[in-house]
Order: sequence, then structure tokens, then C-alpha cells
Amino acid sequence: MQKPWEGRFKEKTEKLLERFTQSVSFDKRLALQDIKQSLAHVKALGKAGVISKEEEEVLKLGLLKVKEDIQEGRMEFLEELEDVHMNIERALIEKVGDVGGKVHTARSRNDQVVTDEKLFLKEEIGKLQRDLKELRIALVRLAEKTLDVLIPSYTHLQRAQPIRLAHYFLAYREAFLMDSLRFANAYRFVDSLPLGSGASAGVDFPIDRFYVAEELGFRAVIRNSLYATAERDFILDVLYACAVCGMHLSRLSEDLIIWSSEEFGFVSLPDRLCTGSSIMPQKKNPDGLELIRGKTGRLYGNLISLLTTLKGLPYAYNRDLQEDKEPLFDSLDTLKNSVAVMTLVLEGLQIKEERTLSCAGGFALATDLANYLVLKGLPFRQAHKVVGSLVGYLLEKGKRLEEVSLEELKEFSELFDEDALKLLDPKVCADRRKTYGGTSKEQVLVQIENAKREEGML
Amino acid sequence: MQKPWEGRFKEKTEKLLERFTQSVSFDKRLALQDIKQSLAHVKALGKAGVISKEEEEVLKLGLLKVKEDIQEGRMEFLEELEDVHMNIERALIEKVGDVGGKVHTARSRNDQVVTDEKLFLKEEIGKLQRDLKELRIALVRLAEKTLDVLIPSYTHLQRAQPIRLAHYFLAYREAFLMDSLRFANAYRFVDSLPLGSGASAGVDFPIDRFYVAEELGFRAVIRNSLYATAERDFILDVLYACAVCGMHLSRLSEDLIIWSSEEFGFVSLPDRLCTGSSIMPQKKNPDGLELIRGKTGRLYGNLISLLTTLKGLPYAYNRDLQEDKEPLFDSLDTLKNSVAVMTLVLEGLQIKEERTLSCAGGFALATDLANYLVLKGLPFRQAHKVVGSLVGYLLEKGKRLEEVSLEELKEFSELFDEDALKLLDPKVCADRRKTYGGTSKEQVLVQIENAKREEGML
Amino acid sequence: MQKPWEGRFKEKTEKLLERFTQSVSFDKRLALQDIKQSLAHVKALGKAGVISKEEEEVLKLGLLKVKEDIQEGRMEFLEELEDVHMNIERALIEKVGDVGGKVHTARSRNDQVVTDEKLFLKEEIGKLQRDLKELRIALVRLAEKTLDVLIPSYTHLQRAQPIRLAHYFLAYREAFLMDSLRFANAYRFVDSLPLGSGASAGVDFPIDRFYVAEELGFRAVIRNSLYATAERDFILDVLYACAVCGMHLSRLSEDLIIWSSEEFGFVSLPDRLCTGSSIMPQKKNPDGLELIRGKTGRLYGNLISLLTTLKGLPYAYNRDLQEDKEPLFDSLDTLKNSVAVMTLVLEGLQIKEERTLSCAGGFALATDLANYLVLKGLPFRQAHKVVGSLVGYLLEKGKRLEEVSLEELKEFSELFDEDALKLLDPKVCADRRKTYGGTSKEQVLVQIENAKREEGML
Amino acid sequence: MQKPWEGRFKEKTEKLLERFTQSVSFDKRLALQDIKQSLAHVKALGKAGVISKEEEEVLKLGLLKVKEDIQEGRMEFLEELEDVHMNIERALIEKVGDVGGKVHTARSRNDQVVTDEKLFLKEEIGKLQRDLKELRIALVRLAEKTLDVLIPSYTHLQRAQPIRLAHYFLAYREAFLMDSLRFANAYRFVDSLPLGSGASAGVDFPIDRFYVAEELGFRAVIRNSLYATAERDFILDVLYACAVCGMHLSRLSEDLIIWSSEEFGFVSLPDRLCTGSSIMPQKKNPDGLELIRGKTGRLYGNLISLLTTLKGLPYAYNRDLQEDKEPLFDSLDTLKNSVAVMTLVLEGLQIKEERTLSCAGGFALATDLANYLVLKGLPFRQAHKVVGSLVGYLLEKGKRLEEVSLEELKEFSELFDEDALKLLDPKVCADRRKTYGGTSKEQVLVQIENAKREEGML
Repeated sequence: MQKPWEGRFKEKTEKLLERFTQSVSFDKRLALQDIKQSLAHVKALGKAGVISKEEEEVLKLGLLKVKEDIQEGRMEFLEELEDVHMNIERALIEKVGDVGGKVHTARSRNDQVVTDEKLFLKEEIGKLQRDLKELRIALVRLAEKTLDVLIPSYTHLQRAQPIRLAHYFLAYREAFLMDSLRFANAYRFVDSLPLGSGASAGVDFPIDRFYVAEELGFRAVIRNSLYATAERDFILDVLYACAVCGMHLSRLSEDLIIWSSEEFGFVSLPDRLCTGSSIMPQKKNPDGLELIRGKTGRLYGNLISLLTTLKGLPYAYNRDLQEDKEPLFDSLDTLKNSVAVMTLVLEGLQIKEERTLSCAGGFALATDLANYLVLKGLPFRQAHKVVGSLVGYLLEKGKRLEEVSLEELKEFSELFDEDALKLLDPKVCADRRKTYGGTSKEQVLVQIENAKREEGML
Repeated sequence: MQKPWEGRFKEKTEKLLERFTQSVSFDKRLALQDIKQSLAHVKALGKAGVISKEEEEVLKLGLLKVKEDIQEGRMEFLEELEDVHMNIERALIEKVGDVGGKVHTARSRNDQVVTDEKLFLKEEIGKLQRDLKELRIALVRLAEKTLDVLIPSYTHLQRAQPIRLAHYFLAYREAFLMDSLRFANAYRFVDSLPLGSGASAGVDFPIDRFYVAEELGFRAVIRNSLYATAERDFILDVLYACAVCGMHLSRLSEDLIIWSSEEFGFVSLPDRLCTGSSIMPQKKNPDGLELIRGKTGRLYGNLISLLTTLKGLPYAYNRDLQEDKEPLFDSLDTLKNSVAVMTLVLEGLQIKEERTLSCAGGFALATDLANYLVLKGLPFRQAHKVVGSLVGYLLEKGKRLEEVSLEELKEFSELFDEDALKLLDPKVCADRRKTYGGTSKEQVLVQIENAKREEGML
Repeated sequence: MQKPWEGRFKEKTEKLLERFTQSVSFDKRLALQDIKQSLAHVKALGKAGVISKEEEEVLKLGLLKVKEDIQEGRMEFLEELEDVHMNIERALIEKVGDVGGKVHTARSRNDQVVTDEKLFLKEEIGKLQRDLKELRIALVRLAEKTLDVLIPSYTHLQRAQPIRLAHYFLAYREAFLMDSLRFANAYRFVDSLPLGSGASAGVDFPIDRFYVAEELGFRAVIRNSLYATAERDFILDVLYACAVCGMHLSRLSEDLIIWSSEEFGFVSLPDRLCTGSSIMPQKKNPDGLELIRGKTGRLYGNLISLLTTLKGLPYAYNRDLQEDKEPLFDSLDTLKNSVAVMTLVLEGLQIKEERTLSCAGGFALATDLANYLVLKGLPFRQAHKVVGSLVGYLLEKGKRLEEVSLEELKEFSELFDEDALKLLDPKVCADRRKTYGGTSKEQVLVQIENAKREEGML
Repeated sequence: MQKPWEGRFKEKTEKLLERFTQSVSFDKRLALQDIKQSLAHVKALGKAGVISKEEEEVLKLGLLKVKEDIQEGRMEFLEELEDVHMNIERALIEKVGDVGGKVHTARSRNDQVVTDEKLFLKEEIGKLQRDLKELRIALVRLAEKTLDVLIPSYTHLQRAQPIRLAHYFLAYREAFLMDSLRFANAYRFVDSLPLGSGASAGVDFPIDRFYVAEELGFRAVIRNSLYATAERDFILDVLYACAVCGMHLSRLSEDLIIWSSEEFGFVSLPDRLCTGSSIMPQKKNPDGLELIRGKTGRLYGNLISLLTTLKGLPYAYNRDLQEDKEPLFDSLDTLKNSVAVMTLVLEGLQIKEERTLSCAGGFALATDLANYLVLKGLPFRQAHKVVGSLVGYLLEKGKRLEEVSLEELKEFSELFDEDALKLLDPKVCADRRKTYGGTSKEQVLVQIENAKREEGML
């Protein structure tokens, strides 16, 4: 099979090099985008008078036939034709004859491949956004269900203060909302047409790039041909957004894994979402969550992979850039799956509220006692010290904070009165945090209301 | 010296642990932001009636005195007080007595530190944006100067097609403009107030967080207290934007280093921007550019550093988060310096236009010959093949493309005519690329005009 | 102040570039190694007859005076002299006059700096090895103390099988022993002399490099001058060994943080190894462990930093290589501190053995019941299924495995007999794992014995 | 199809989770290693009397039949059986009936998978070592061919001093030799048997692990069962060695890419090792080298991927560890291909020695002139300055260093004499670097001799 560029070559390409440099084994994933692009390009060539109306029709029909072959799985992609572009061009020529060779007029693979990638990303980011929305909706639903479940918040994995469990799930909803914004930002960089930049210097045919942009649904046209063909920063943006979202997922997984240990015993997962052990008959493991956490590795790795490839690379196109696709595909697939599994896990999550409630009390209530003293006029720093000593005293006595008597309190500060004892209840404490964004029932309800509106759940 | 939290502790902290866990040696860089925050916080405490008007005044005056100490270099930061917050609180108490302890009412270091970081970033991102603008302006000025300088564009570090050198500099201007957008996106995440989230559950004093936001110049208020104290993704965004910008700088550096080799000989740097060798008397090295390129390493490293720290971390605050500051400071400083040095280099760059012109011709003109045949009706793929064979023929003859005769051309295709020979001039070729974003004079002028308007240079 | 290389330069270096390219602010840490190297170099110059005996003496005395200045803190390092080498050369010339300029004969900074780094690493790796040994000794001592403490092993953070806690600590001893081997491997690459390679091509004075190697304590001499000055892979090896060791530390920290949660309650730390909260009076946080875990970030970041810097760098020396020092210093310091803090933590660790024992029973004993059936002839896969069903049954009944009756057992398999009930004891189960490397008392004692011998504790 | 662990499970696994957690789609690459392991395991079970001799024979025969199925491509791997281990166990049971279930006695997938990986790595590292040797042999052969080719060495991509081109290739041979040592070090960690560690606590059947080690060709037996099942540091070592080797390859690629630019024109590649452009007929691009350089990204990415996955992971086994395989496979394949392509490129490399010689002269000879003055007694630092000024003077005159006259020399220093002019020849300069490891002919011959002996080429 002839290479499309072999005019000046005297020798056939070495097989090993052919295999090493081919990209069709993975870039064929862009085949439909490549067809879509070519259809628009052919129209632009026709509009510019570079090809005749008849040629335009022939090429479009040919492209649609190739598209059908691809969709029906009849298209055979050959490594010796290097990449998806040359494979499709060849298939087109087979369908329509030599006139098929006109499709590459006013175009180079350098601008073609970036255009394919952008068309692909426009779709993929859209899908991811929908998946992230599902995940957030699952969180909001959980929040509604757990509005009255008390649990300690943790700092340093030590109990901090009682919160409503709903508050916790809503925190993650914020995180995943920010992730969606990151993808939306990435999308804006994607949404700009490279086609018409040629190999790097622009094109010497009167192509109307704004027309092509409109045909392909791009909001803008890239303004410099060198920049258009040399850059992959828009792919970095996607890899980065995937990495941060994966980081958030890893943190949520970690919490849920810890919470589903027998020692914490806060949540459990239904059997259908766990797997067992080949050797230990009692085991029911949260493998899905562990894999979500573990896959953070590949999301970070893919980001660093392309960052490395781009470092120190001369402008404009170099073959190194071909290494952009596999990490991109892998990060998108990984994240999509992780988000879907997490959504499933959240939907199936069973909460053991008695256990969480019993952990939400005790010394987790100490801050409120200190704040009680503050309201009585003691500077906070001294109030902290008073209650700290009280905690030390009770620890030695082996008593919970709820078991303290008024007399004992008074030994630590005369400011304590009967009403201090009423604070010693997780629900009371939680509801005292009424500031905007706090964990009181009224504030959590505000958050839920907000969230439902934003997610279109009302 | 007493720890602010030692109420419940029976033993003094081990010295080694104290040194290991302290952060004041680096977070003192946030001292002025911490003061600024406390001033707003004190006003909010007053407004909420948590402290009296007199106390508010005392605390404000005290804070201003501490601020003065800091600005005058009189403030001594002690490691045994852990961090900048506790050092300033202690200094305040020394100025105003026990009432100083009231400043920490309704606040935890968990929301305090993030607020400091965000105040800091609001300033730093602003500075960086100004530096990036300077860099872009230097590129635009260079573009104006090199509008009529011809140079080959390179793909695969092989000559591709002739371009105007201005076109090259404008390509990088696009890249750095995108970097500014990345920082602007990061800024939007930064611009949201965490204060009022307490340790993680919110605050049980009636603080008006919207008032605080306005006082501190935040556009929004974070809506969930757990999220506010657990997250560092907004710092990742800055580290990422620094990494991508560093990547762009590394590519520009690489090009300029290659171009300043004796073999390329396209540019040279004035002596004041080079350094010499300790052993080789003839050496004049582009060290600044090399270091810019080399420093990509730390920009990537800092990003991966915080990504790693955050992976799998339980919500909400963990001490691990303290590791966010040094990479952030380092990336900001590194990028700021790299941008400044690059601006200096661009301003001093000397172009050797005869040399670039002579490289812009030759086989770099071959595409235009192929396109000539296309306009005569030959499908592009065949035109490519014809000219490829011609190139092979000339290489064997040891001739440049400009030296071809019409007779020779006709041997390869009867479609060639006299006017084909006129194409064999870099300037002609460049000017044929008239599509939007192309390298023709008219299009480059459009870009320059555009750029000057956007950068406020008109 | 004159630059040592300014002969061919017509302009003074720009201040900004000077600051940007200087390295003395951090490479001054290599000052004593630089003196040590110069002393050996001067002897070699003398031996080769390149300088006279008198000159040799003068230079040596001068160097010793400079050394004294450095040690006494009297040496002033100037940024305009770029680096530690030029600062010391200048100081030497000030001590002994122009003859000081002879010290740089037959040497370039390119081979000088690598030699300094290697001398530095030979010392630093030695120190780290000693620290790691201390850490392992702490683990062995803990193992001796916890030989009879039972605890569940965890897989998927779910209880797996009962083990002796000693077994757990000995596992980490193996990990840190492997880390020591990694550093020993790195050391072998370090232990080879670059000096005598000049700027990259070798030296045109008859220096005896083997003599210099002996003087400086290098086992070998690098065999190619270009390689000697272009490479930094030996630094990567150290950064990598630090990263892996940090990874191990992060895992141990994670376990101990989880174990010190109130929910697990397996261990606690003395007050002197914890810190408190600025707002919550009850808090006692394992900050040291959290920071060890968090600092994994910078260890990974430093590795990726230098890997990035080296990617695609032409042979031989480029100024980019200057970026090797800060990550190296930071990783060494970080790891040294983390190891020391971990050692302290392990020495102070308090074990709550009643709690761990109670968790080591229950369904963690199920595997042994399955293996009981195997010994009675049932294929393992079926035995696993039988016991799995039993576990399901007991979970529904809300019973622990120890509460099962023989009758109940027999309902699941007729093969069960009275002696099966005896297996339902964590200690019995642990001691059944007698294979080499298992958790039985006898095998754990073998491990301890082994460890004590290897660590020189006998 | 039944799961091997479903005894205690009431619900069927969700399809999505099944797909997400399966590993057989990639770990089937370990199928033959899994069979090999099982054969040894079955023998050990027989030897220990856990199974009868007849059972041993039945199982062995069954395993060999499964092996044949695998080798003949008849084995069907099912995702619902999770991994390669359970697929093979199921296939075995299908061949031999329920007794097949005995193969998993005294074994868990936790020790099984690590054993498979180590068996795999023992083979793969062996292959890589052979490939690296081929690469080094290609370098030595090139060195022999280019012994008398002069070229400038470069520092800062500026000409430094003349060297023999052979010296350059021998430098890379050193680098790749160190890479082989890195793999050999990694091999030592690999070469230690995990099997017999069970799920993490060891095994309660009297398996002779030393016998198994011998059967499988392991040098040692892992000494702690928890460590054996929890660790993946030995995989990191391989990923790291791949990353460093990739870094070396990226540097060599970079040099060759620069050298094959028309501007340098030092080398060219035969047509069979280049590819063309879809649009520019004249293009002949060094794509193989570019991809080798670009693939550094994935090698770094894979390393950071597993480092991330392991960060902060509790001991012992967690499902996250399943993420170790894909990066490992990818790095091994990538490196193997890159090494092979680089070997091919080096074997086909054409040197343009006239061009390299002409670049090796000129100011690259300046150091020798300075050293000439040193030999006449001038301190080096002053000699450097004298020659620096001379260079400045000639640059202004537009003269090469070889064109200087004795009179001119004497204007800069009276110490110059007739013989100084003889130095102005690249070959003379190169041959003056006679120190061990230098670029003189005699020293380069020593290196070649050495290399040929070490590579078994004599």
C-alpha cells in the first residue's frame, strides 16, 4: 500500500518504524469526528470554488458511505496508513476515485487532528457534565434523607463537632460543582476552530474559516495558524479537570471506606456493590470505592504524561504531540466510570444512624461549652483553656462530657450555670451553627433548596 | 511560652515535633493578610454584638500596631507558637492584654488560614496578570519589528513553509493570553470567602459573612463550612496555571536557544543577557533561557506535590494541608521571575534577518508548487506526489528548489507554466496564506492590530 | 566586582538576570565539599607538575583559611559571583593573591559541581542510613513489646485474619530495609569521581584522576568526560529512593492515624507528640503523622521536578542542570525529619491491647473454619462456600462467630466436629500460621531474632 | 456464573461494578505465569500432604491442559470471573471436576498475584536487558566508525570544545549501562518469593516455601507475609528504571533531531527510517526520534501513577493495588519499542563529517589557547581573561580563531609564541585531552576496547 507522502522517498518504511509511529490503533476512535470535519471542509472547498459543485457532491456522498462503513464496523483500519486521517482518505478514494484526493486540499493533518480532537472533546465534556450532574443529584438526595442524622465532623480524623450528615454530602456537592466549572472552563478553550491553519503557516486557498466554524458548531476561530497546530494546552485543561475531580472522588472514597470499617460502622453497602475474597469467607469489601481511589493514580499520571511531552518542545508541530491521545482517552473513560460507580454507591448507601449519633456527642461538644463562657464575657482564649482543663479532668475520670455535673463545671469556672448542661446534646450544638453555610437545620435546608434549584430538581 | 491550646495537655510538646509541625517559618509571608482579615473579623464581631464597641476599637488599634511592627521588621516570629496566626494573636495580646484573646472568637485556624491564602492570591494573581501583559506587549512589539522578516516555520524541526517572523511571536502571544485566562479562571475560584466556617461545622455566633466578604473584597461567600475548610482545589488551579504557563515558556526558550546556536544563527542576545564559562573564554551562553526551561521542572513538581498531598485525604481539615503553602509560594515566585526574564530577553533580542531569509526558501516552498497544480485541477494527493518526486530529483542533483527550470518542472507535470516559477520566493509564498490567521502580511497586520487593541497599546 | 569570565563581554550583566541565574543562595550548602575537592585538586596539580610545590602549599593554606572563614560564619557569599565555586575562588585569591587563580586550572565548574554534589551525597546518604536504622530498631523494639498482642490484619480496611501486632511492625521493618538497599544502590552510582572531565571533553593537563579519587574517597573514576558532566541520573536515584521511603512512611502514618481515631481506639500517642486545636478544647491531634503523610507530596514533587528538567536536554552541560540542587536538598531534609519524627512516634506509641484483641476475633476467624473443612477433605472452593453461608446466617442472627454452636455448624457441613470450636480463638488462629514468614509465635520470634542480628541489636 | 466467593452474598453483583472491578481484560497477560505458579503450588501441596499424590497428578494434568488452551488461543476469559486467577481456577475445575477447587488451598489471590507479577518481571527484565545490550553495541559500533570524526561538544547548545564523535556515542553507552544496572537492582527486589503468605497473615498448611522458591527459580523467600502482600515497591523500581532510561533516550533523541535539522546538518537518516508530510512534499521527518522523546511522558506518567496509588494506602492489601498492572505493562512495552527503534536509528545513521569538522574549529579552540598561557606560568584566571579579550577582538573583526596572526596574539600576551598557532586545529586540541576519560584518540580507544570487552564483542 502506498503512503500518501511517498513521492520523495526512495525506500519503503521499516516495518518496526511503521508500527512504532502509527496511531491508527488508537486514533480511529476519532473516525466519526474526522468524517464530520471532512464534510464541512468539503463544503467550504466548494463554497470557495476550489472544487466544483459536482466534486463537492461526489465527495460528500463518498464520505457518507465511509461513515456508514465505520458505523457498521465494515471499515478496516490499516497501520501502514499511519492514522485515522489517511485511512479515511484512502477509503474515500476507493469509493469515489482520484477525486477523493481533493479532500486534503487546503488542509494538513496538523490542523485536521486538532479539529478532530476538539469535536470529540465537545461531545465528551458534555457527557461528563451530565454524569457529574447525576452524581450531584445523588448527593442532594442523600442530603435530604440524612437531614436529621447527626455525625461528628472530623478534623485530623479526630472527632471535631457534631454536624448533620446532610451537611457533609452537600460539601461534596460543592466540590463536584466546582469540578463542573473546571470542565466548563476547559470547554471554552476547546470551543475554537483550528481548521484552516494548514501545516502551520495558514492556507493558500480562500477558505472561509468562520463558515466552517459555524458548520461544525465552534464558537470561535483560532486566530494564529502556528498557535493552532502547535498547542495542546486545551487537552491539558481536560486532563487537569479530570485529575482534580479524581482527587475529590478519592477523598470521598476514603471517607466511605473508613466509615464502612467495622470499627467505625457508620455506613454499609449492599451486597450487590461489594465483592468477596477468594480465601476469607466472611469478607465483603468496598472494592468499587477502593478502585475509584486507586484510579487517582492514572488521572494524575496522564496529566504528568502530557505535561512532560510538551515540555521544551519547539513550536510548531512535532510528532511527539501524537502522544496526547491515549492519556486523554484514558482519563475521560476512567473518570466517567468512577463517577458512575460513585453515583451507584451513594444511591445504595445504608446509614447506621444510631452509631453515628453516639459518636457525635461526648467531647465533640466541648467547643460549645467554651463559647458559652465567651458569651458570659470571658475572652475566647481563656474559655478554651478552661474547657481544655475540664476535658483533661474528665478523661482522667473516664467520663463522657455529657456526664459532667454542674458542680464539676463550676469548679472550672464560676460562669457556668444550669443552662450550660443543655448544650450537651449533638442536635442542640449543630443547630447553634446558624451562620450562612453552617450545619444548623435551617442553614442545611437553605443549602438543599439551593442545590435542588440549581440541579433542576424542583 | 504557652501554647494557645494547651488546656488539656499534661506534657510539653517535644522540641523535634514542634520544629516539624511549625509553619511560621514560611506562613509568616501571610502576616499582612492575616492582619487584614482580623480587622474585618473584629468589625464583624462588633457588628454582631459579640464584642463591645470599645473592645472592637481596642482590638483594631492593637492589630494596627502589630501590623506596624511587621512592616517595620520588628515582629519576632516564634516557632513554638506554630504559625503566623498564633504569633499574631500572641502579639496582639501583648499589645492589648487578655481582651486580645477575643479575636479568635467565632473563628478557627481552619477557616482563617484559607482566608489568608485567598487574600494573598487575589493580590498575587493580579501581579502575575500584569507581568504576563508586559510579556505579551514585548511580543507584540517584536512582531511589529519583524513584520517583514521571513523565516521558515518548523515542523519536526525540519523547515516547513516560509512565515513572517511576526507571525511566530504572535502565536506565543496567543499562548500567553490563554494563560492569562487560566489565571482569571483560577481567580474566580479564589474569590469566595471561607471565613465564618469555623473548624468545619460553621460558627455559633451571629456573624454576617456577607458583610465580611464585602469588607475583604470577596465577590462571594462559600456556601458550606465543611467544604470551605477541607478544600485546596483553588490552590491547585493556581499551581496548574503556573505549570502550563511554564510549559509555554519552556517551548519559547527551547526555540530561542536553538535559534541562538551558531548553526542556526537566527538570533543573538546582547552580552548583558548572557553569562560566560569559567573555563572556556569564548563562551556566551543563553543561561536565562536555559533556566526558564529548566524551571519547568519545579512548576510541574509543585503541582504534583499538592495533588499527591490531597489524594485520599479525609474531609475535612487535616494537618497535611499545611503542605500547600511552600509549593504555592515557589511556583508564584518562579513564574514571576521567569516571565520577567523572558520579557527582558525578548526586548533585547537581535534578529539576523539575512540568515533567516536564506533558510526560508528552498524546499520550504514545495507546498506552494503542489497547490499550484491543484489550482490547475490535479487532485491534491497527486499534486503532492508530483512535487515529492521533483524534490527527490533535485536533491540528487544537489539543487535548491529556486534553481529549477521550467523544462525540469514540465518533466514532472505538463500543468506547470511560467507563472509557477514566480512562486519560488518566500515572501510570495507567505503572502499567499491569506486565510484568517494565516501568515500573509495583511493577516499578520490584522493580528497586530487586534493585539494592540486588546493590550491597550493603541 | 568582576565576573571570572568577563573577558569577551562588553556589557555588565543585567541585575535581574544576575539574580535569576545565581545559585550561591542555595549551593553555598556545598561550600565545605568544594574546599575538600579543591584541596585534593591542588595536590593533583602539584603531583602533575602543573603548579610548583610552593604554589601547592600556598593554595592549600589559603583554602584552609577560607574553610575556617566558612566554618566560623565569616564568609560572605555574593550573588554577583554566581555560585559557591566562584565565591570560594574569589575568597582564595583575596587570601593568596593572583596565584589563587591557578586553582581552576584543569577544572571547569561543570565537573566541579558534580564532584561537590557527590561528596555531599556520600555524607548525606550515610546519615540517612543511620536514621533509617534507628527507625527499624524502634520497630523491632515495638515488635518485641507486642509479640503477644493480637490484632486483626486488614485487607480492604476490613478485618481479615488475626495476627500478632509484632508481625505488623516487622512488616514495616522489611519495607524500610528495602529502602536502605535502595539508598545503598544509589550510593554506588554516586561513588564515582567526575573531576578531571573539564567542561565536557576532558582535561589537557596530566592529572592523575585515580589519585584524586583515592584522596576524596571515591571507589571509582567516571570513564567518559561527556557523560560525567552531562548526567544527573545519580541524583534522580536519591530523589527516587526518598520518594519510595516517603511512600512507606505515608502508609504507616495512615494506619496509625486510623488506629488512633476514637472509633478504632487501637493506639494513642502521648501528649508531647500531639498538638491541639485553636478552637476545640478537646482536640489532641496526631499532627506529626499527618505531616509525614502530607510530605509525601514534596518527595514525589521533587522527583518529578528533576525528571522534567532532564527530559529532552541535549548532552552535555546545560544551565538547566542547576535546578538539581533545591529538590535534592529538600528531599533529603524532608525525609530525614520524617524518619526522625516517625521514630519518636513509634517509641512513644501506646497500645490498647484489650481493644485490639476484641477486634481480632469474630468473623476474622472464618478462614480457619474453611481450612478445617479442607483438612477433612473438602476442596477449598467448596469449604469457602460452606463457611460463607454460615457467616451469612450468623450475620442475620446478629451473632459473633465465637457464639456458634456445634449443632449450627453441623447444619452447614457434617464434617464439623467438636474440635472445630477450638479454632474460634484469635491466638489459636494466629499460631496456626507456622509457614516461614507467617504470624505464629514461633515464626514471629524467628523474624525478631533475625532482625536483631541484622540491626546489630544482639 | 457463580463467583468463587459468593457464599455470604445475598445479591448478585451489579453489572457496572463487575465491569469496573474486573481485571481480567488486562491481567490475562499473566496467564502463563499463573499456570507456572499453580504447577509449583500443587507440587508443594502434594509434598506437604495437603493433597494426595493422585490429586497432585490430576491437578497438574489439568493445569497443563488449561495452559494448552491458553497457548492455542482457545481459552475464553470472562469478566464476571474478575481476574486471571479465578478464570484459570474455573477452567481447571471444568477440566478435572471439583478437585480443581483444591488448587486454591493455602493460597490467596493476594499472594498469588504478586507471584505472577514477579515471574513476569523476571522474564521481561531479562528481555529488556538484552535489548539494552543491543543498543549499547550499536553505540560501540558507531564509536568505532566515528573515531576520527571531529565535532564540537556542546554546552548550553553553544560550541564548547572539539571532541571525537566516538566520544559522544561512548558517553551514551555509559548512560545505558547505568540503566542496565538500575534494572539489575530492580531485579534483585523482584527475585524473592511472596507465595505462601496467604491473604496477609501467612498460611496454616505446612507448605515448604523454600521448595516453591526453588521450583519457580526465586533466589529468596519474602520473610513477612504482611509485607509480601501489601507491597508494590518492586514494581515502582521497574517503572523508575524505565523512566530514567526513557529520559536518557529523550536526550539522545533531542541531540539527533537537532543534528538532523538542515541548519546543523550533522547527520541524516535513511528514507526507510523517516516519514513524510501529508501536505508538504519536501518533508522527511525524524518521527521515530520524536516519538521516543515524546514517550518519555508516558514513562514518567506511569511512575507517578503508581506512586500516587500507593500514597497513604493502609497495610496490607487493598483493591487499589490492582492499578499496578497497566502502567507496568505500558512502560515495559514502551521502553522495549523505544530502545529497538533507537537501535535501528543508530545503525542507519549517516554522518556528514565535513560539516561537523568545520564546526569543531573556530572559537571552540579558545580554551587550549588559555591553557597554553597557563603552561607558560600565567594563573588560569588571567589566561582566561586574556583569551576572552582576544575572542572579543576577533568577533569584532569578523575573523575565525584560526585566522589570528602571531602578531595579534602577542598584542594580548607576550607569552604567545609560534607554537601557539599549532594548537588551532580541532584534532590537535582533542588529542591533548589525554586524561583518563578524555577525548584524545588514545583515551577513546581505551574506552572502545573496554566497551567491547564488557559487551562481549571481542
